[in-house]
This record gives sequence, C-alpha cells and structure tokens, in this order.
Amino acid sequence: MVQAISLWVGIMAGHGKAKRGIPPKSDFNSWYPSIVEIAELVDKRYPIKGMDVWMPYGLMSMRLIDQLARREMERTGHSEFSFPLLVPEDLLDKENRLVSRLKAAREAGVDPSEMRAEEEPTGFKKEVYWVTHGGENKLDVPMFLRPTSETPMYTMFSLWVRSHADLPLKTFQIVNTFRYETKQTRSFIRVREIHFFEAHTVHSDQQGADDQIEEDAEMVRRILHDLCLPAIVSKRPVWDTFPGAWYTKAADVVMPNGRTLQVATYHHYRDQWAEAFDLSYEDTDGGSKMCHQTTFGMSERLLGAVVGMHGDDNGLILPPSIAPHQVILMPIAPHSDAKVTPTVEDISARLSSAGIRTKIDDRDVRPGVKHYDWEIRGAPIRIEIGPRDISSGKCIVSLRTGGKSDEPLDGIVETVTRLLDSVSDTLRIRAEELNDSLVRPLPVDPTSGLAQSENAYSDGTVYELAFDGNDSDAEALEKLTGLTLLGECDEELTNEVPCAITGRLTSKRYHIARMY
Amino acid sequence: MVQAISLWVGIMAGHGKAKRGIPPKSDFNSWYPSIVEIAELVDKRYPIKGMDVWMPYGLMSMRLIDQLARREMERTGHSEFSFPLLVPEDLLDKENRLVSRLKAAREAGVDPSEMRAEEEPTGFKKEVYWVTHGGENKLDVPMFLRPTSETPMYTMFSLWVRSHADLPLKTFQIVNTFRYETKQTRSFIRVREIHFFEAHTVHSDQQGADDQIEEDAEMVRRILHDLCLPAIVSKRPVWDTFPGAWYTKAADVVMPNGRTLQVATYHHYRDQWAEAFDLSYEDTDGGSKMCHQTTFGMSERLLGAVVGMHGDDNGLILPPSIAPHQVILMPIAPHSDAKVTPTVEDISARLSSAGIRTKIDDRDVRPGVKHYDWEIRGAPIRIEIGPRDISSGKCIVSLRTGGKSDEPLDGIVETVTRLLDSVSDTLRIRAEELNDSLVRPLPVDPTSGLAQSENAYSDGTVYELAFDGNDSDAEALEKLTGLTLLGECDEELTNEVPCAITGRLTSKRYHIARMY
Repeated sequence: MVQAISLWVGIMAGHGKAKRGIPPKSDFNSWYPSIVEIAELVDKRYPIKGMDVWMPYGLMSMRLIDQLARREMERTGHSEFSFPLLVPEDLLDKENRLVSRLKAAREAGVDPSEMRAEEEPTGFKKEVYWVTHGGENKLDVPMFLRPTSETPMYTMFSLWVRSHADLPLKTFQIVNTFRYETKQTRSFIRVREIHFFEAHTVHSDQQGADDQIEEDAEMVRRILHDLCLPAIVSKRPVWDTFPGAWYTKAADVVMPNGRTLQVATYHHYRDQWAEAFDLSYEDTDGGSKMCHQTTFGMSERLLGAVVGMHGDDNGLILPPSIAPHQVILMPIAPHSDAKVTPTVEDISARLSSAGIRTKIDDRDVRPGVKHYDWEIRGAPIRIEIGPRDISSGKCIVSLRTGGKSDEPLDGIVETVTRLLDSVSDTLRIRAEELNDSLVRPLPVDPTSGLAQSENAYSDGTVYELAFDGNDSDAEALEKLTGLTLLGECDEELTNEVPCAITGRLTSKRYHIARMY
Repeated sequence: MVQAISLWVGIMAGHGKAKRGIPPKSDFNSWYPSIVEIAELVDKRYPIKGMDVWMPYGLMSMRLIDQLARREMERTGHSEFSFPLLVPEDLLDKENRLVSRLKAAREAGVDPSEMRAEEEPTGFKKEVYWVTHGGENKLDVPMFLRPTSETPMYTMFSLWVRSHADLPLKTFQIVNTFRYETKQTRSFIRVREIHFFEAHTVHSDQQGADDQIEEDAEMVRRILHDLCLPAIVSKRPVWDTFPGAWYTKAADVVMPNGRTLQVATYHHYRDQWAEAFDLSYEDTDGGSKMCHQTTFGMSERLLGAVVGMHGDDNGLILPPSIAPHQVILMPIAPHSDAKVTPTVEDISARLSSAGIRTKIDDRDVRPGVKHYDWEIRGAPIRIEIGPRDISSGKCIVSLRTGGKSDEPLDGIVETVTRLLDSVSDTLRIRAEELNDSLVRPLPVDPTSGLAQSENAYSDGTVYELAFDGNDSDAEALEKLTGLTLLGECDEELTNEVPCAITGRLTSKRYHIARMY
C-alpha cells in the first residue's frame, strides 16, 4: 500500500486540480468541499451527485474509523452480520402499521409513552431508491435499497429469537445504505450512498434496553475521544424521534461554521418494533413476552466531522487514531550518504513493529514538496533524516499541529509515541476551544424576553438555553429563532435559571442551532 | 467476538434446524445446501431468493479470504478504492458501442485479434437490477446496480490518466455486486448479491498488460494454495470470453459432484475498452497513445469451493488460512480443579500472541457436544485440557482431518503451528486425490472415435482431451457430449496425441465438463 499511495500524490497533482489553492478555512463553506478532494479523500466527479468515489487515502481513514467501531462492538459482545441490500416492499407493511398505530395512539392521547412517532407511513417510501425491474422483467414486488436495516433484520430476528436463552441478541453490520437525497449533497455529510454503521439489539425487558442505551453512550464517548471531537449529546424532541422509537438520543458535533452535524444516534424502541415484527420469546415461566430493542447508528459523517473540525489553512489534520500514516519518514540527500537509506529503513521497522503506521516518502522531489503534500493530507508527524542528523544521532521531527524539534534517534519509538499523544491532546484542546467559542447562551433580555426577529440570532452560533416548556413552546422557539432544537442535553445546567420561554426555574439545558 | 459467537451455536441449535441430520456427503447435492446453514455460514430464509444473510461465522471466514486477496494486492502494488454502486444507464452507451464494434469486426473478419466479443449489446441489460425511481419520482436516467465495475471505473480512469507518469494504474475494490439471476440459486455459488473482488489495471502498452496477466495468475495460484484448492486454469473459448476482452483466462475448481466451479477470471483487454472510454495518455515523445487494460475477478465462490471440496459427513473442514478459530480450547472439569481455567487461559494467550486464532469454548455443556459443534464448523484443531492433563503436563489434541494425540504443554505454540501446517497439507493431498479421481481422459475409440450419444458421458466427470480444432469443431464437441468446454488448459499434455475431433497430433490440453 505504501508504494501505491505515493502514486496518487502524483496522479492527483497531475490532473489539474488547484492543489496549491486551498481556500482559507475562515471561508469554511468553500474550504470543506475543496479539501476533501485536494487531500485525496474522495473524487466527486462521478456522474451521480452525492455518490463520490472513495480514493485510497480516504478509504484507509474510513476503514480505521470502522476499526474503532469494531473494537467497541467486540468489547461489548456484539456479533457482526451482513444483511442483504434489497428489501421487498411488502416487508414495509409491518413498519407502516407500526408507525400508523403510534400516530393514532398519539392523536388519541392514550399513552404518553407512545406519543413519539411523527412521520407519515408513506414518508419513508419517499426517501428510498426503488428497484422495479430485473433485466427486462418488471418485478412482482418492487424492492428498495436499504436506507437502514430495521425491516430486513427484524424479519430475521423473529426467526432467531425463541426463548430467553437467545437473549440478549447483540448484532451489528457495516454496510452502505442509500437515501434518495433531494437537498444539496456534501461529501461525508449529506450523500446518497452512505458508509454506515448500525447495531441492533434485542433484550428480554426494558431494563436490558435501558442498559444498552448506556452502553451505546459509552461507545460514542470512546470513539469521539479517539477522534478528538467534542460533542453535544441530546435527547431529540418528539418530532425528531426515529419512527417507531420510544426516544432517540444523538451526538452532534459543532462544525466551524456553527452548524451542528449529527454524527451518532441511538434509539430505545421499548417493545414497539417487536410488536410489529412479532418478536417475542418464551420466558422461564413458559409465558410469551415481547422483546425490547435498541439501535445505534454512525456513519461516514464521523470523517466529515474530523475533516471539518481539525483541518486548517494548510490542509487536513488527522487525529493519530485514524491517520493512514501516523509518521512520514523523509530521507534527506540519500544519494550523498549511503547511511541515510538504511537508517531510515531501520527507524521505519522499529516504529512499525511498535504498531505505529509509518511510511517512507522516498519520492525524488524536494523536501519542501514532501512537507507540503503531507501537510495537505494531515499526517500527524513528519521526520527528516539526513547525513548531518545521522552523524549527530538525531532527526528533525515536525508536528502537523505545529512545532519542530531535534530528537535523538535512540528511543525514537518512545519519542514518537509521546508526540502522537501530544498531537491528539492538542487537537482535543483546540476542538474544545472552537466548540466553546461557537456555543453561547441564548440572549434573553430580563424585561423584553427573547428578541422577536430571526435576524437577532447569528447563523454561525449554537445557542444554549434553559428550557422546560412543552412541545408547542418548543415549536414557538424554533419559529421565532429560525433555528432547530437539538433537544434536552445530557448535561444539566449547574444552577436553576428561568426557562427562556416560560420563565419557570429549571436546570434543563437545551441547544438550538442550524443543523446540517 | 469470542463470547458472542458461542451465542450463535446456541441460537441455531434452538431454531429447529436438523443440526444433527447432515446428509451424507456422497449425496453432494443435498449435503452442500444443508451444511452452509447447519455450520452457520448463512441463513437462507431471507425473503429474496439468492440473497442470503451472512451469519457471523460465515462472514469471518469470508473476511479472511478478503485478507488473502488484500495481501496479494499489497504485495503487487494495487491501491484499494471504493466506487459507487449505481451506474447511470447512459454510461452503458460506450460499452455497447464497443461490443457492437467488435462484433461487426468479427463478422467482417477484418482482424482476428478483435474477433472475440460475442454478446449482444443488449445482453448485459438483461442481467442487471434497474433502479427507476427515487422516492415517488421517476428518474430521468435509470440506473442499474453494478454487476461488475468496468463502466464506473473507466469513466473515472479517463479523468485520472493523463501522461505516462500516471501509469501503470493498479486498482482494486472489494464490494457487493448484483445479478438478476434467473437460474436456481445456490449459496456462494450462484447468488444475486455477490461478495466480489475486482482488480482493474491500466498500462502504457500491451507488454504491461501481458505482465499483469502473469501477475494475476500468480496471485490466483497463491490464494488457491492457501485455500488448499487444486484448479484447472484455462483460456476460455471465444464465445465464453468477457465482452470487450481480447481473451479471458479462468481457474475452475472441480467440485465433488464433478461439476466445475469458476472461482477466478482475468481478462486481457488490450486497448479495446480504452478506445471505448477514451483512455489515452501522453507519451514521453508528446504523442497520444491508447492504454492497455486488464481486470481480475474473484468472489464468494472461493468460500463455496472450500466448503464443497474439504467438508465431510461430519461437517465443514476449514483450511487454517481462513478458519475463524484455528484452535478451540476446551477446559475439562474446570470446577473440580482450580488450575484448569488459568492453564487454558495461559495457553490461549500464548497461542494468540503467536498470531494463532484461538477460542476458548467454556460453555457449560458436555465435551461431546463441543466436539460435535466444532466438527460441524470445521475448526482445524481442538485441544482438551483437564486436571489429569495438567498434572502430566500434557493436553489432548484432535485434528479435524483425523487423529488425536497427547502433546506436551511445553512448546505448545510450535506443536500447534506444525499441526496447522499438517492439516493444510492433508487437505491439499485429499483435494488433489479427489480432483484426480474426477478428471479422466475423454474416451476415444481408436476406430469409431467419440461415442455419439450424450449418455456415454458421465455427468459427474471432467473429461480431459487433446484438441486442436477450430470454433466449429469445439461447438460440435459440446453438442455431442452435452458438456461445456473450459478452454485450453495452461498445462500442456506431456506428449503429442491425436486431437479428439480432427485426429491431428497435438499437445494442447482441453477439458469439458458440466459447469456450475
């Protein structure tokens, strides 16, 4: 792979892209779409909008994110499956009946715990791609490309789950999903073919599902920590709850333009989906009980968040956890000193055997060009080794987050390990600072209350507020500000303050923002 | 993962399958479809025929096959990409023009080197799934699910390749492909959603493509060696050549029922596809030249061949290269001796750190049940460790290929490594023997020639013959025998013998068989 990649530096440089023309990051809406191509993550010129070609470097980063997810899934005892892409339309009937039933219950006000599902039964059909023909034959039953896998999975789960001994059933898959997206597409953020990660679990009771939701939250925290991304975790408002879910929680990353990007969701279904799919089990007492379920989803948006959050005017900055090459070794003047190449190879071998992803860039170009290329691609550490360094037993180490130092060749593995950690720490600190600068209290005038014009609310800000109103208060808030309610934040306010709408004292923390 | 898997043993045992009723392998056509489900590779009950659910154990085996392919691709400098699933219909126009042009050339007899493509331009359209609607909107341009990726890839290649410095371009991807299959489906062998491996290369001249074909052949040899599979490698007859290819080579594995299974193909395109896709480059002299291309494909059929070739009446036998668990450790009576569990864990740690995939089966069931389960799933080595073994410093090692021995706990890593190799060797020898017993010379009577009735040819045999006839001789041969010509074998006969049709002396070796 090492050898093959340097080819791509060459090819992309040759194909006429404005490689030397990265827009300033302060112009984020120009910077982001440029950098994903300039850094060779994707090529957007495929003739279907929102379906990019994954280039080798982008694919390697995404696979490393997959590995973080797999690590968490293994740690928590989930098994990996792969379900078919196509779903026959008639399997949707169960799902539609579920959504209709919940909607009816909500309208009748029979059970607040079921007052969650909002979408029209037909809403889902509007968002998928339909396969209608096989060859020249019209299919008896049309099929759609999965937008997510509840329907295909739960059809099978109802065959697999028989007794309490089969529970909990903890599954996941990493597949591509499809949305017929009519809004403007953006690489990783809003695409029509989505690299998707979904876990689905089945439990014998609500407590099991409750615990799973806790486990999901912990997995999200660990993965976001590895990606050096702060996030706001909220319980979505009723109207933004996944169809058929009791409630939905989501993690949102605040991007540099102040828009929030939903990067993970987890849903507690109670037994609502189970009833629709006849997912019951025989309990120890011989009785039949409905299962409780959860799902957990993440996607290539994680990579979008990494790109958007950490990059700078010079290109990407990849967290060491997902950098395809954590260390770039640059031999200097290898032809003038026969010791250079073997020394570089020795250091590469030592770093690699310590599990550090290392690449030797031995292209026959000036060191400046190499620095430039690996700055754009966001490699965390670059090391130069030339004749002078070897004679002094040192090398020159540059961090992508800034700083350059002479480091002894002895103990280079320990040095690099420490510096990789320091790059991660720097990224976390900077990301927190950026996040904090973009999240501000919603201005409430003590006498006149909230400003009554949308113009009073900055497009590039996430507003934090105290809120304890009902659904119609929330609706009024969204209408007034022109922003979207992320929902009730997992972290409460430290003090009770007046609700921005009702004026009642509360410690419930909410956010409103423009969402991607 | 270790923990999660034992769940599945439980679940599948509970779901009513005739787990204890594997048909005898002598009845291969019953055995094969049963064992793929009994061994928990797939679940075929998904409501679309030919689209199976990959169960964790099957998926792990397939991913290990992917790793063999990736290893070869890295070794040979291919870069991994991921191209979109959907292809707009209008991109097919170029491909159709190519196939039409080659067909016309062939009919006019203008250039024998181009007399290769046979299929109707519309033939391809008959084999794919068509996406016609996005939500409720009819798409302006229908799209199809990729059956293979020449069209999407070469559309992009023509943007990427500018000059000789961009060549060779060596790419691959591992994705699912789709065929609207109207024949009877069989797990791994003939499915509608295919786990597929495809490499596509671009070269500056024919020599580059020729060399690539050699490299492909070597990769196939290495992968088949790891899977302990013998194969017949042939140059396909003209009418079985991939559309647009100059020639096609294929590796066929002879299954125990005497039918051949094509498990790998590689195609030399010369500059024929390049002309259709305007894939040219600027040479060192400033002139524009057409590229030469090859492709190389393999699929989940490799797993089908492994299952079919190596299994026996007791279940699967997985070659160590792709066994999810190479060693199953079975603690015996762990509750009666406190030393058992730590000893088993210590051995597991030693084996794992030597890179041996190891699983402790600590289910609370009788050892006989564990043996039975892991026989069905084909784990190469089972090791029992109980109180008596520990006091004598030994353990009992059973090989899935047969045989059981006491082995010292000291040096267990070396012992297991040696025994895994011996399992592979045994599988290779048995597979060669089976292959040799199924491949027989085509009976030709010295006076009357070939028998003139289809009944004279056994359904369960691959016939080898000397052949140097032309296309119509080959057609006559197929018609006479009711079998299919695999093509000219890479390995020549050791002596010249008379051609089965023309009677002329030749050393060209051909095979005819029933193909899957």
